[in-house]
Amino acid sequence: MMIVMRSNATETEIETIISRIESFHLNAHISKGIERTVIGVVGDGRPVQSSQFIHMPGVDRIVPISRPYKLASREFQPEDSSFPLDGVTIGGNEIVIMAGPCSVESREQLMETAHAVKEAGAHILRGGAYKPRTSPYSFQGLGLKGLELLAEAREETGLAVVTEVTSPELVPIVCDYADMLQIGARNMQNYVLLHEVGKSMKPVLLKRSFSAKVEDLLMAAEYILSHGNRKVVLCERGIRTFETATRNTTDINAIPVLKSLTHLPVVLDPSHSTGHWEYVTAVARAGVAVGADGLVVEVHNHPGEALSDGGQSLKPIRFAELVTQASAVAEAVGRKVAPSKALQEVAWN
Amino acid sequence: MMIVMRSNATETEIETIISRIESFHLNAHISKGIERTVIGVVGDGRPVQSSQFIHMPGVDRIVPISRPYKLASREFQPEDSSFPLDGVTIGGNEIVIMAGPCSVESREQLMETAHAVKEAGAHILRGGAYKPRTSPYSFQGLGLKGLELLAEAREETGLAVVTEVTSPELVPIVCDYADMLQIGARNMQNYVLLHEVGKSMKPVLLKRSFSAKVEDLLMAAEYILSHGNRKVVLCERGIRTFETATRNTTDINAIPVLKSLTHLPVVLDPSHSTGHWEYVTAVARAGVAVGADGLVVEVHNHPGEALSDGGQSLKPIRFAELVTQASAVAEAVGRKVAPSKALQEVAWN
Amino acid sequence: MMIVMRSNATETEIETIISRIESFHLNAHISKGIERTVIGVVGDGRPVQSSQFIHMPGVDRIVPISRPYKLASREFQPEDSSFPLDGVTIGGNEIVIMAGPCSVESREQLMETAHAVKEAGAHILRGGAYKPRTSPYSFQGLGLKGLELLAEAREETGLAVVTEVTSPELVPIVCDYADMLQIGARNMQNYVLLHEVGKSMKPVLLKRSFSAKVEDLLMAAEYILSHGNRKVVLCERGIRTFETATRNTTDINAIPVLKSLTHLPVVLDPSHSTGHWEYVTAVARAGVAVGADGLVVEVHNHPGEALSDGGQSLKPIRFAELVTQASAVAEAVGRKVAPSKALQEVAWN
Amino acid sequence: MMIVMRSNATETEIETIISRIESFHLNAHISKGIERTVIGVVGDGRPVQSSQFIHMPGVDRIVPISRPYKLASREFQPEDSSFPLDGVTIGGNEIVIMAGPCSVESREQLMETAHAVKEAGAHILRGGAYKPRTSPYSFQGLGLKGLELLAEAREETGLAVVTEVTSPELVPIVCDYADMLQIGARNMQNYVLLHEVGKSMKPVLLKRSFSAKVEDLLMAAEYILSHGNRKVVLCERGIRTFETATRNTTDINAIPVLKSLTHLPVVLDPSHSTGHWEYVTAVARAGVAVGADGLVVEVHNHPGEALSDGGQSLKPIRFAELVTQASAVAEAVGRKVAPSKALQEVAWN
Repeated sequence: MMIVMRSNATETEIETIISRIESFHLNAHISKGIERTVIGVVGDGRPVQSSQFIHMPGVDRIVPISRPYKLASREFQPEDSSFPLDGVTIGGNEIVIMAGPCSVESREQLMETAHAVKEAGAHILRGGAYKPRTSPYSFQGLGLKGLELLAEAREETGLAVVTEVTSPELVPIVCDYADMLQIGARNMQNYVLLHEVGKSMKPVLLKRSFSAKVEDLLMAAEYILSHGNRKVVLCERGIRTFETATRNTTDINAIPVLKSLTHLPVVLDPSHSTGHWEYVTAVARAGVAVGADGLVVEVHNHPGEALSDGGQSLKPIRFAELVTQASAVAEAVGRKVAPSKALQEVAWN
Repeated sequence: MMIVMRSNATETEIETIISRIESFHLNAHISKGIERTVIGVVGDGRPVQSSQFIHMPGVDRIVPISRPYKLASREFQPEDSSFPLDGVTIGGNEIVIMAGPCSVESREQLMETAHAVKEAGAHILRGGAYKPRTSPYSFQGLGLKGLELLAEAREETGLAVVTEVTSPELVPIVCDYADMLQIGARNMQNYVLLHEVGKSMKPVLLKRSFSAKVEDLLMAAEYILSHGNRKVVLCERGIRTFETATRNTTDINAIPVLKSLTHLPVVLDPSHSTGHWEYVTAVARAGVAVGADGLVVEVHNHPGEALSDGGQSLKPIRFAELVTQASAVAEAVGRKVAPSKALQEVAWN
Repeated sequence: MMIVMRSNATETEIETIISRIESFHLNAHISKGIERTVIGVVGDGRPVQSSQFIHMPGVDRIVPISRPYKLASREFQPEDSSFPLDGVTIGGNEIVIMAGPCSVESREQLMETAHAVKEAGAHILRGGAYKPRTSPYSFQGLGLKGLELLAEAREETGLAVVTEVTSPELVPIVCDYADMLQIGARNMQNYVLLHEVGKSMKPVLLKRSFSAKVEDLLMAAEYILSHGNRKVVLCERGIRTFETATRNTTDINAIPVLKSLTHLPVVLDPSHSTGHWEYVTAVARAGVAVGADGLVVEVHNHPGEALSDGGQSLKPIRFAELVTQASAVAEAVGRKVAPSKALQEVAWN
Repeated sequence: MMIVMRSNATETEIETIISRIESFHLNAHISKGIERTVIGVVGDGRPVQSSQFIHMPGVDRIVPISRPYKLASREFQPEDSSFPLDGVTIGGNEIVIMAGPCSVESREQLMETAHAVKEAGAHILRGGAYKPRTSPYSFQGLGLKGLELLAEAREETGLAVVTEVTSPELVPIVCDYADMLQIGARNMQNYVLLHEVGKSMKPVLLKRSFSAKVEDLLMAAEYILSHGNRKVVLCERGIRTFETATRNTTDINAIPVLKSLTHLPVVLDPSHSTGHWEYVTAVARAGVAVGADGLVVEVHNHPGEALSDGGQSLKPIRFAELVTQASAVAEAVGRKVAPSKALQEVAWN
């Protein structure tokens, strides 16, 4: 059960509710959003009566929730959630495209790729500064230097930046440089990290672990939401199955399933979900057709020389085709890809 | 290595080739198609020289093939294969839609559904007479009576009929009634059955087992093709993974992977691949967007009363929406859904 | 609900029960065993009252069964089932070992291997005459010739023979030559075949499909049991997962799970479940330790020259070590490997 | 290629080697163990000649390594590694048993369980103070208070303590209280955490992620080993598959596979790998039979009241049976369970 407080509820009213909850030997879980506070009533499974709270001062409404995830559920919020990020809206009718290299490797590589993806129609620049790699002997990312280059690329192109944060103590520094924090698939259940990005109030791109059920992903989102941070975007990026023809199996079903269970925006990363550049564009089209709110695509100016994931990276020219095709499919399903930042600038000049 | 004979090659020429193959202690695998004979040279892995055969009488060309599947491979036939079925072409630029109930249950149920799917734009009627069911105590299909009803529905609607054959000895009787034989997922590696449908020369809808790798599916197709039967359509219908939110996981990647490896037409069954009617239309759109050559959809006039798979069956009215949406996506990717048989008749009248 | 008739129940009594069942618009499922008839009452899920049948003539007892599999369940038969096969008992306290080559390849290969496994302590000879192979171009088994060689090996060694049957129409001929019919993993849901082996009344070794849940395996067994054939042995042989270090993943959990759900004997095939000879003995020990009632092991006199599955076949000398180690583990868990047929003969001489 | 330095190699010798490596545009990876330093030569795949290093001062030997994991491989160290922990040796011929509650819940619960597992024969006490839980609303562990109780239990019982560390910044405090650090399955690829526990030089129990391939687990171990910390124990705890009859699928094959690929000790956690207490003892027997070097078992004095994982926890009396049965199987495979600490004390008194 979630008790939604009025936007003008006082601290005293909130504390009175908490005391009452605890008087029934239940736990109160406080989630302070920017507009209003929501108090979760967490018990031991025995039924709780909403009548015991509904008439208390400051209470707006009470939402009974049957799912284990609460704030993430459609029961709690029936309408789609969305938020603006640097000129585009994530979660609305328009489809948002995030693109860029797997790893930030050098100024030249990043700037060239950033300009190219902007020209092709991308809205947000992605790129890894801290790279979780299977081998301790592989390139681990440029770290702080990578963050600085990302900030420079934002300066140059006007594209917002999303980059991965791999550890709780890195959250403040990544927040300083990035517009959106990415939680990678391997860290989806790194709960200490989820708590920190929850507290940061920054937009979060939460990638599904390759072995997470849909419900596990929603529970991970709940960790972030429970700190009052409501700017969470879910990302399907392929699951691990017996099939070896592709690196992962794109769980295309997960997108409509998620859209029915949660109000959060859902995007698809067809680069990781296939692992081969030649399938990326086709699967990107499928993602838009099935109802995804955005795409996350790996693009590299010279894929053959990439320090990581070259085999699944698109050349800029192919990425431009992907955007064109995604736009056509978007219109076929009654949506559209958000306006190109490059074109907007042209218009303004 | 495949030796492709000229279309006017004589029996003697063919036999001379075979003798020569055997003189090298290799096996000859003969596949007599309607137009020409192809002779596979099957050895123990040691290299075979094409120069030893290329100049022999009757030989058109020699195709070296690196894949374990031969006749199914793009190496053997680079261009897409296609074939006409009762007024539509399967495997061409137009998308073909097969629809109907999981099981044939009664004349009324079948006729009502058949007319409805025709009106909505389906091209082929699907429906099971012999049903492989997990439980011996479940409804096992109407058998011969079901075949008779399907033939009657074809008579009434003009739609071609595809239905499952579950055992080698049933192949002749199902061939008598149906236009296309379906091999169900559970029988994908029932090799005795594959041999029989191969010999039948009837078009075959070969469903991927829920635990088959893409390569396993192509090897199963090879069994049918090796009898000279080239009218094989591959069907992705979901694989078994750890995810339990849906009945199966639609392996959407498999469609472009198959299209790159084989020339055979590839269709998607979003009903089985999701298992919930509310996700069927979205995933059907994804299938068309990703490049499928057709859709197989379960439709029931009264899903709530279905004897099998009611939960994943669409009502006719929702199926009509699916066709409309699939058509829009088809056009966005430069294709179109084949013309409605209902509209064609109107045009002819 | 299962109605167990007395062993001396008359045909008239049975028919009276059936009529009564049908008068309630329910279906009667008759399973005539050698000793007694069991009548399953199959309905549409509405509760059926046992009081409506318990006092009818010929009825011994009524067993309510909550599981979808009925005759296979421990609810229906709490005590372990077992049956004798040519001097050994399958399903009792003693552990039975089936061994031999994947395929019967030649008289010399089979006889040499058969004598070797007998010397080492095997009780039943396994070997494939009809081989379901992934590729139509691979060795498909010797067929009838293979059956004849198996019969000859039985004659020579005194070992009972188990061999795979791959198609319904082959059931009679395989029954003529073999003591036990094997249903291979790929045919576990070939229901037409299951019906035929059910009717044959021969002992059946039913291998779990590599993608079957435990419940699917029990439902497949139910098909056989429902014909009154109660001599069914279940075989775990590995499932398909994301792990590629081994050919399959041995589902060792499945053995105690099956032993708790069903009264049927359960054996383990560590050759297929690992796919590498060097892990077979260790996993065989695990199988005995966890509670398996037997082992199925691939042994070849010259694994390097095997026409199929050479990489997972043990040499006879290593198989002898396996039997020794399995015997030691069996005693540690309060059981023993059934006496060696070779030693028994020595004792008799 | 790994350059193993002599135990008396000087800093200057080491630096000279590093300079030479870098002069070839390769990277040197330094791993300073307690006895000797090992220098990994990490390149871009081009072959490196050992002759360029073998005669340099301070070099003992050079080991070419084909696997992506280096220090973890049997190529690098053919003999089993082992280390003592508070009176028992992990990784030798004796089998070590770690047991205790999933979570530390209260002093009474922990002390009662700790005494019970010691009496039954456990050597190491396990118990979680920091709990990674799927839901933010579930009990998250007692944290520091839990660590204090574990230290108190060690004081009282003399059992060494292993407990999970969930975040890099918690490593120092957990090191203060525990004898061995546990990396949980969800954190197996939390590389920042792996680096920290690597640097700590504390013994580490590294649990396999439920979606990790065997090779992924070895790569995770390599992160820890590369800091010179060689006291790593690998733990199989079940993988995620399509089977739902058990919580996870025990990958029993993984144990002999790991033993062949790595010199590190391998233990089995049958509580998590099955998820149901009634299967734990049988699967523990299988683990010992297959070659595991130890067991990790959840035991709770009152499983029905446990705050987490009660369904898979054994009562102390059943755990005592498990130890007895594991001991019998150990002897059958030529090993033994390490002597009980309780009995040793009796002997000393």
